[in-house]
This record gives sequence, C-alpha cells and structure tokens, in this order.
Amino acid sequence: MQNITESDISKKTNKPSTRRILGIDPGLASTGWGVIDMCGSRLVHVAHGVIETTNAMKHQVRLLEIYNRVLAVLRQYEPTEASMEALYFARNVTSGLAVAEARGVVTLCLTQNTVPLVEYSPLSIKQCVVGSAKAEKKHVQQYVKLLLGLAEIPKPDHAADALAAAITHTMNTPAGIGAL
Amino acid sequence: MQNITESDISKKTNKPSTRRILGIDPGLASTGWGVIDMCGSRLVHVAHGVIETTNAMKHQVRLLEIYNRVLAVLRQYEPTEASMEALYFARNVTSGLAVAEARGVVTLCLTQNTVPLVEYSPLSIKQCVVGSAKAEKKHVQQYVKLLLGLAEIPKPDHAADALAAAITHTMNTPAGIGAL
Repeated sequence: MQNITESDISKKTNKPSTRRILGIDPGLASTGWGVIDMCGSRLVHVAHGVIETTNAMKHQVRLLEIYNRVLAVLRQYEPTEASMEALYFARNVTSGLAVAEARGVVTLCLTQNTVPLVEYSPLSIKQCVVGSAKAEKKHVQQYVKLLLGLAEIPKPDHAADALAAAITHTMNTPAGIGAL
Repeated sequence: MQNITESDISKKTNKPSTRRILGIDPGLASTGWGVIDMCGSRLVHVAHGVIETTNAMKHQVRLLEIYNRVLAVLRQYEPTEASMEALYFARNVTSGLAVAEARGVVTLCLTQNTVPLVEYSPLSIKQCVVGSAKAEKKHVQQYVKLLLGLAEIPKPDHAADALAAAITHTMNTPAGIGAL
C-alpha cells in the first residue's frame, strides 16, 4: 500500500465542505472515469480519462490493470463518493459478463478505500442530465459539456458517460450521502 | 498485508514437487472453494468450504467479504494454481451479472497473489469428473467423493462443485501450467 503523504493530507483538509464525486463507466476494454466537485450548488470539472486494456493481455491481467488504475485515480483525486451506471442486462450476454467482472473489481477498489458507491439506471441518468429519459447519447454528452462549462465534449465517450453518472449523483443527493 | 511467517515458508519448502489446486465456484451469496494436492498422479483432498454473504449486507460489503475470505484461503493453503467453471450465459441475467461481479473479485484476488487461473466449461467438468458431458449434478458430486476418497459427498453443493473444477484442472494439465 502507498503511504499517505503530508501533501495528501493537506489536500484533504483544505476541502472540508466540498463533495468530490467520481463517476465511472466500467468495461473490460475501456473504463471511463470523471471527477467533479460539488461546491454548494455549483459543479466544477476536475479531471476525466479512460483506462484501456487490450485482448493481447491475459484476462487476469486486464482486471488487475483496471483495479490498479482506478486505485491510482482514487489516490490522486480522493473522491468522497462514487457513482456508476447500473447494469441491468446486456444485449450481448458474453460481453455483459465481462463488463460485470470489471464492475466487481471497480466496486471492490472503491470499497477497500471506503468510497461509497451509488448506482443509477441509464434512464435516470438521461432524465437528470438532459431532462428527458428518451434523450440520445449525443444530447447527454452535449449537456455534460454545458453543465460543467467545458469548451468541448469530453473524450472519449466512456469518460463523458462517467461524468454524466457523476452529475446524476449530485442531482439525486443534494444533501450528500452517508459513509459506506 | 499479512507478513509471511517462518512456518509459512517451511510449509512451502517442504512441498516442492506438489501441485496444490484451488477450485472455486463463485457466487454473490455463496462462493464454494476446495483445495486438493496432486502428488504424482494421486489426488489428495486438503480442505473445502463456502463463503456466504446475505442480502442484509450492502452490495459493496458483500464483494469485499468475498475478496477477504478468498484471500484468507490463499494465505492458509497457498495454492499454486486455481480453477473455475467458465460462465457463458445465465438463465437469470440479473443474477448472472451478480455472479460475474463476484468472479471479477475472486479473479483479482488470485491475480494479486500470482495464482494462475484456468477456466473450464460446465460440459468439460462433467466429462472430466464423470466421463460423460451429460452427467447429472448428483453424479458429479458422487465422483468427487470417489476420486478424492472421501467418506461422504462434500457439503454444501458449491464446495463440491469447486472440488470438481479443481479435479478437472489436474486432468487437463497433468504436466502443470506456467506462471501467471
């Protein structure tokens, strides 16, 4: 385990009233992540990115890579809460099972680091971000850009989806949530 | 991390030519496990058990419990290899996704502890253990008892299934497998 440094502690103590939300869009090949701060009612974009693994890697190693890189995001940005799109079914069951394995690994990493996780249905994410459960993917991404005051739509798509999950969480839990 | 003790080291050095296989039958509510030694062509039962979590626990905590208890099994029995039934599809997709999350957590735990994992289809497990891909569950359990020279069928079912996966692995890899 990496030790917590003095700078990490000051980073934490300097932001006592800010909620920092990590949104995650997990997948075996591509796990999007996005971090936003909730300062009062204002949303501030902090960072986003994507964790990629390839078919050339052993399945075991891909899951370990996802875990290690999510852990690095947790250590760098120290989110207080996390949010993820719920997975109810998968059109392609085999790829759905691979996504679920990645979700398990991400959830474990959050839990070991005492970051509470809330899941939202795809429909409720569209409803929250765009105002319509029937919104198209492109509209959701456009609203992510607008709501976070970004110059461009965040890339790649998985990172934009992760930010959408984080925004949804702030709208559903304006008063915050309890500890894990 | 728990430190490796002197007794752990002597345990390891006393068995240089023995392959120790951990079979796992993962699930969110019940994860069966079974450990067998392969001494030449002889199979020796070492231990088996089940890791249970309940609906009363938060989903995040259930995955953490599975991880921690698999880790405890790895530390106690120090398997050199692991084997699991492959999950191709699930009749109930929602419960299939929960199983896949548990599988992801178990796979991660093995990988972090450099235990290589091989997966076998349900049909190949039946074929290996009973000699027929059409064998019924009860027959597989009966053969697990016979092959390991046990007085009774191992209980619960998930532990017997885990031992069947471990036996299958020894039959498919008589010469051993490489490192992770």
